[in-house]
Amino acid sequence: MNFNETKVVVRYAETDKMGVVYHSNYLIYFEIARTEFINQCGMSYRDMEDIGIMIPVLESNCKYMNGAKYNDELTIKAWIEELSAVRAKFNYSIIREKDQKEIARGNTLHTFVDNNFKIINLKKKYPEVMSKLEQLL
Amino acid sequence: MNFNETKVVVRYAETDKMGVVYHSNYLIYFEIARTEFINQCGMSYRDMEDIGIMIPVLESNCKYMNGAKYNDELTIKAWIEELSAVRAKFNYSIIREKDQKEIARGNTLHTFVDNNFKIINLKKKYPEVMSKLEQLL
Amino acid sequence: MNFNETKVVVRYAETDKMGVVYHSNYLIYFEIARTEFINQCGMSYRDMEDIGIMIPVLESNCKYMNGAKYNDELTIKAWIEELSAVRAKFNYSIIREKDQKEIARGNTLHTFVDNNFKIINLKKKYPEVMSKLEQLL
Amino acid sequence: MNFNETKVVVRYAETDKMGVVYHSNYLIYFEIARTEFINQCGMSYRDMEDIGIMIPVLESNCKYMNGAKYNDELTIKAWIEELSAVRAKFNYSIIREKDQKEIARGNTLHTFVDNNFKIINLKKKYPEVMSKLEQLL
Repeated sequence: MNFNETKVVVRYAETDKMGVVYHSNYLIYFEIARTEFINQCGMSYRDMEDIGIMIPVLESNCKYMNGAKYNDELTIKAWIEELSAVRAKFNYSIIREKDQKEIARGNTLHTFVDNNFKIINLKKKYPEVMSKLEQLL
Repeated sequence: MNFNETKVVVRYAETDKMGVVYHSNYLIYFEIARTEFINQCGMSYRDMEDIGIMIPVLESNCKYMNGAKYNDELTIKAWIEELSAVRAKFNYSIIREKDQKEIARGNTLHTFVDNNFKIINLKKKYPEVMSKLEQLL
Repeated sequence: MNFNETKVVVRYAETDKMGVVYHSNYLIYFEIARTEFINQCGMSYRDMEDIGIMIPVLESNCKYMNGAKYNDELTIKAWIEELSAVRAKFNYSIIREKDQKEIARGNTLHTFVDNNFKIINLKKKYPEVMSKLEQLL
Repeated sequence: MNFNETKVVVRYAETDKMGVVYHSNYLIYFEIARTEFINQCGMSYRDMEDIGIMIPVLESNCKYMNGAKYNDELTIKAWIEELSAVRAKFNYSIIREKDQKEIARGNTLHTFVDNNFKIINLKKKYPEVMSKLEQLL
């Protein structure tokens, strides 16, 4: 299994009055890791959007185990769990550097659409992009 | 089943380059609805925090069915699915006003903690708050 | 002078570890008020974007006088300070409902551009939109 | 003049329907740079808050010259313009790496307060912190 590790440092704006990262921000961290993970295949997600492939989120699931704090260094692991011609599922795990505790864990399900949000069969319409993504498995 | 309906209008800042609401914002909409729903019990969530009860998110799950756009009016329904002395699970459904289509649907699981993030038995420690929340069932 | 009043309730996600609204969110509040203010002219800002007029921010200035807290009700006043064929300047004042204290005050400067971000002379290119905006003065 | 350079990569969540970074996010970028800049003095901003010194924003001013896009690499320069026992003013300039164009430029004015948001004279109350900050001039 191929995976990627992305580092983020918790921003002040991401904390809330409990003193920890507001929970929806972990979905943003997931996305940063997903973007970097995809970039490894030799084509950035930005390039995909530029040629008309968008990969919106159909579903997100996240478990919050510990509260990350301002200025904490976090490592986000991302990997592909499933990949088909019309869907991709990514998994994530967020680790706090200083004590190696898992902060959050989750997954996101995606589909491939064109600029009009119509689902596309990536394998048929963009076989070369599909094979790039397959290298990430 | 008791439920609540909260209205929001999509903010420009909540959209992304796809032209629709960035997915993590639906978790924020869920929270707005949860807050208003709880406020109905006769004690606001803010008051609960002021006396030392916090209700952090342990888990969130969301399905994204349609993309809400800037300035869309959305109605968020919220209701309690489960309530015990140590946990609460809320359900949500977000409807776009103009066509009554469901935009997103999800749930969040919570626990009750004190200011030191220690889990508390709400029924034992704050029975009057517990009975207020039970009215929301 | 014409002005508009918009209500917002502070969201949990908008607070930070200081326990108050994170400062950049006031710019988002300004925008909500600006949108509602413009909507009064008989054409929504969303409709303007749909026909190819965008009004991006060139400059923002904000003074933060008091810290708004979670669940606080705020009223945002917005009005136009200057309007020309190529620019508009909006002023804002944010009042906390419960004690009528001013929380923040500021302004934003804007220009009119087309979908390619080229500056347009609104009076020449869209005289009917220009006269709608002039009603807001 | 001492300054610091911080790198950020534009996140998808930071873009809006215009396809560029939503303007209030530049204030968040300023803060990331300010934090890193302060950390250089031998004491992190997080440590300052831990001993009871907070440095809230009194005023922010920003000019937006170009629209940064998703995945763009940006460099944020930060430096102190003024420093007194009760106030600090920081300047910022954000450069897009690929073409070295300036994207945004601004400043923030701050005061020093304790945990009760009372203004403190940093030089008198925390002379050692004051002298650390003075090294940043």
